[in-house]
Amino acid sequence: MELLENRIRKDGRIGAGNVLKVDSFLNHQIDVPFLSLLGEEFYRLYKDSGVTKILTIEASGIGVACLTAAHFGVPVVFAKKTHTNNIYADVYTSSVYSYTHQRSYDIVVSKQFLSPGDRVLIIDDFLAKGSALLALLSLIKDAGAEVVGAGIVIEKAYQNGGQIVREMGIRVESLARVASMTEAEGVRFC
Amino acid sequence: MELLENRIRKDGRIGAGNVLKVDSFLNHQIDVPFLSLLGEEFYRLYKDSGVTKILTIEASGIGVACLTAAHFGVPVVFAKKTHTNNIYADVYTSSVYSYTHQRSYDIVVSKQFLSPGDRVLIIDDFLAKGSALLALLSLIKDAGAEVVGAGIVIEKAYQNGGQIVREMGIRVESLARVASMTEAEGVRFC
Repeated sequence: MELLENRIRKDGRIGAGNVLKVDSFLNHQIDVPFLSLLGEEFYRLYKDSGVTKILTIEASGIGVACLTAAHFGVPVVFAKKTHTNNIYADVYTSSVYSYTHQRSYDIVVSKQFLSPGDRVLIIDDFLAKGSALLALLSLIKDAGAEVVGAGIVIEKAYQNGGQIVREMGIRVESLARVASMTEAEGVRFC
Repeated sequence: MELLENRIRKDGRIGAGNVLKVDSFLNHQIDVPFLSLLGEEFYRLYKDSGVTKILTIEASGIGVACLTAAHFGVPVVFAKKTHTNNIYADVYTSSVYSYTHQRSYDIVVSKQFLSPGDRVLIIDDFLAKGSALLALLSLIKDAGAEVVGAGIVIEKAYQNGGQIVREMGIRVESLARVASMTEAEGVRFC
């Protein structure tokens, strides 16, 4: 999506550890009118998929998920992060490994909010090695719900998360796919 | 706001420790079209206040903040929770005491995203003893920005947070004000 690629070129910064910082519009400050345009694009891509619910993960997925859901007219459910290892009877639980923080944490969703009748679209801000996305897919599977696909704002296509999930037969639509990024050459898109 | 009071009567549950659970529409599952109506009401209340930015706190404030900001056409900034005590040079920091979890945590906002020229509307899902709201006000003050007021979805009016903040001369608009709640009698509004 050219609009997004241009915005990343303009406002994205490459930080220490080859991190792409887009916190001026995506995940600390949220440019709401702009993210609503991204949501409209996800709607265009998935409008015929019978989406009944959007699933994301706290905290940085919530903004784009809500601004996407507004186009679909469906609810958002966000998986909550927890550092306790308790397994509660009333939640679905899955484990995410954070490469940024080099540790695992669990995510949970109340069983009330994912059901066999649901057709779920996953929305998230980033896809890199796919740990969070795989964990969300596991929650949907546990609930007996159906996944219609994933909508990702920025995919780091030089990492293998997108490939793993697509090879599972899951539709993944990323609005920007980063081929490479270096401080010297900036961000290059696929 | 009658629409909200009716929804709380219908879907709110009073849990252990006198907690009002509204996670079916507000802070775990998010009823996006409904929260957009709440956002429209915040817009009606604050549309003449020259709001340039909406400030909230992760994670449960982000949904309603984004769906309010969509009416104003302004960005959202969400304060991030951190459990480290490091004070970074590039962030404003403030401390919140959580009565639910009985411990303190810090919240931070990058200095890039709050400036002296900003007229800030705080949006949050709950107001009880006011610890989070006071911490957000402190961040705004540190930034030299101006607060135009706070928009709260549910105020527990039998606790004193709202009174403390209003006595500071800050405008606080709560869409539902709970006077009392018990398992026997349910929720009563002011």
